[in-house]
Amino acid sequence: MLEELGKKACEAKKKLMIASEEEKNNALKAIAKALVERQDEIISANAIDLENAKKNGMSTAMMDRLKLDGERIGQMAQGVLDVASLPDPVGKTLLEIERPNGLKIKRISTPLGVIGIIFESRPNVTSDAASLCLKSGNVVILRGGKEAINSNMTTVKIMRDAVKSENLPEDVIQLVEDTSRESATALMTLNGYVDVLIPRGGAGLIQAVVKNASVPVIETGAGNCHIYVDKDADIDMAVEIVFNAKTQRPSVCNAAESLLIHKDIADDVLGKIKEKLDEKNVELVGDDAAVKIIDINKATDEDWATEYNDYKMSVKVVDSMDEAIEHIYKYSTGHSECIVTDNNQAAEEFLNRVDSAAVYVNASTRFTDGGEFGFGAEIGISTQKLHARGPIGLPELQSFKYKIYGNGQIR
Amino acid sequence: MLEELGKKACEAKKKLMIASEEEKNNALKAIAKALVERQDEIISANAIDLENAKKNGMSTAMMDRLKLDGERIGQMAQGVLDVASLPDPVGKTLLEIERPNGLKIKRISTPLGVIGIIFESRPNVTSDAASLCLKSGNVVILRGGKEAINSNMTTVKIMRDAVKSENLPEDVIQLVEDTSRESATALMTLNGYVDVLIPRGGAGLIQAVVKNASVPVIETGAGNCHIYVDKDADIDMAVEIVFNAKTQRPSVCNAAESLLIHKDIADDVLGKIKEKLDEKNVELVGDDAAVKIIDINKATDEDWATEYNDYKMSVKVVDSMDEAIEHIYKYSTGHSECIVTDNNQAAEEFLNRVDSAAVYVNASTRFTDGGEFGFGAEIGISTQKLHARGPIGLPELQSFKYKIYGNGQIR
Repeated sequence: MLEELGKKACEAKKKLMIASEEEKNNALKAIAKALVERQDEIISANAIDLENAKKNGMSTAMMDRLKLDGERIGQMAQGVLDVASLPDPVGKTLLEIERPNGLKIKRISTPLGVIGIIFESRPNVTSDAASLCLKSGNVVILRGGKEAINSNMTTVKIMRDAVKSENLPEDVIQLVEDTSRESATALMTLNGYVDVLIPRGGAGLIQAVVKNASVPVIETGAGNCHIYVDKDADIDMAVEIVFNAKTQRPSVCNAAESLLIHKDIADDVLGKIKEKLDEKNVELVGDDAAVKIIDINKATDEDWATEYNDYKMSVKVVDSMDEAIEHIYKYSTGHSECIVTDNNQAAEEFLNRVDSAAVYVNASTRFTDGGEFGFGAEIGISTQKLHARGPIGLPELQSFKYKIYGNGQIR
Repeated sequence: MLEELGKKACEAKKKLMIASEEEKNNALKAIAKALVERQDEIISANAIDLENAKKNGMSTAMMDRLKLDGERIGQMAQGVLDVASLPDPVGKTLLEIERPNGLKIKRISTPLGVIGIIFESRPNVTSDAASLCLKSGNVVILRGGKEAINSNMTTVKIMRDAVKSENLPEDVIQLVEDTSRESATALMTLNGYVDVLIPRGGAGLIQAVVKNASVPVIETGAGNCHIYVDKDADIDMAVEIVFNAKTQRPSVCNAAESLLIHKDIADDVLGKIKEKLDEKNVELVGDDAAVKIIDINKATDEDWATEYNDYKMSVKVVDSMDEAIEHIYKYSTGHSECIVTDNNQAAEEFLNRVDSAAVYVNASTRFTDGGEFGFGAEIGISTQKLHARGPIGLPELQSFKYKIYGNGQIR
């Protein structure tokens, strides 16, 4: 069944990859308009999902993530318009070479082709991912969770109608309506049709995709982020950065999970950090040295590797920056790490040696985000090193091709 | 067992990724020198491989690929020196952003980390791949075929000694000495240690890697390349380009396999092309229209999808460029395609619509090569769209990280 979707996607790709910026923007504007105009249809479909969720005993927090109302649909529509206003990434000349034999070689950005997105419960991902893919000239095959299937089907139907009304193929946006485990596996192995698969969701989903996919994958999202407070840190700044990185939005991947603190200032700083984190009732767990300084429970080995996504943080006192960096090597997921220091040399060494997508000096890890980087929007945060690393914006949704101009050259 | 190699690789990576250009070049020069000085060791080991090959009934052509002598080892050493002379791709500033909140964000090129290379019989791949990886700051885990295991073990030993003599960790170059199928599978699934796997070899190897790997892969090499001779082609040029692309080196991936010719000039051109290709006894097979014009056998459906890698070519007469492009969509492996035409508008349309790594106007497909592109060297030709496309040179062996400089920014 998925092969049929794949074939349609490849047909639609031929048109979309050469569509003009105006054609794509018109389709995006039509989508935004239709989402608002036809919001009642979405809200009705969403009501069915909510009812099923309630029957199945879904938590209130999860129900809230699933819910769509006029305000949220308005935000989805605005998100689509925001994407329309971003620069078109397609067709940019990335490199020009002229060879001694007269060959002119141009490296030109091109869409990746067909992007598969596997996501979980949030139904707003449909318009979010579809608009980023459309703007970047990529066909998208969406595969959402069963909890949101009615919302997703209706939203995708509305988007496809809008795209068609602007004379682009409706198949540039497709939804896998079968939400079985088998359909997810089928999408992961749809070689020849899917050029890249991007999972959006929790660690379980991402690991399943990495393990089972034979199509190329961009791994996203896992963030066991560290803040190292150096002996030369500005103490007030350290307190503010740790507090912000931990508590401003603990459920997201760029929130800090682990605090490493140099032994020379631990006595002075740990108490201040704890006092500040107490304002939000953050639970701290620490190593032997930390539990001697502040009144907290001992951390287990598991703690160092855990992305809490909650008001909880592990704390370790280190003898040196070396020890901090070794700890990060061992436990980091390669997302975002930060050093707080006034020592420029230490800062540069930390920046160079820590092998993560985003490495900060004196700023909250919460800035690892497409919007905060000025990319306008993102489809996720890549924690792998192939192709894209960090926030995946429109330019990262491009491949390239070489156009080579000759006048009869042979070897 | 491979996990042990992976751990050593990750330890070595910490040093190599921050090594200076001078340190890496010194190691490369030491490798080149040692390969020449210790060539007798390599030749002795190679003699064992050749003897085993003979016992196992290996073909003369394959034996020739396997053989190392003073001249070939000299070429390997020169290849290493050539890589040393290329610009260091590490640490380049790819993008600089200053945000309204004062954050300075730099995108800096960094090594990918640990690269796995699975290859078949040619033992020169060891020094070739190891030098490209070392220069680009990447640790390499090599896994060659059993036919060349003695040659590979000795070559790698010599390279490791040379690297160590220059105070870099010898584990930046490692060889999987177990050549069982299990060891290949283990390397393909060494997640957490291997950042990218690049297969170098035939279609069977590459498909096995794509299917079985859970680590990120760069798919290389398959080249079912097409030449489309447009109705507005310069006929003499078309004959020369087809002849060169088919016969200059038929065994390689950028050789042309299929000729598409516009019906308006087929009567005139096909005979001339056949006459030229007859000089090298190229076997042509054609569609109904082609077999009416020249005396050749009929092509089967399978022919259109076949990369002959030999003195054989399929020929199809098309009604239009549209039909040529549709044929390419259906059968191309996305490597290299060419249009021969004097019509600039047709050329641009072909360049834009054909979705392959390298698309040519009026030049032989044989130029899809790192050396011919001016990249100095390559580790393969990528036929996927993620990360790298076309010749994979040193810059394509890089990832990047974001270095972010703040002065206390929080969200």
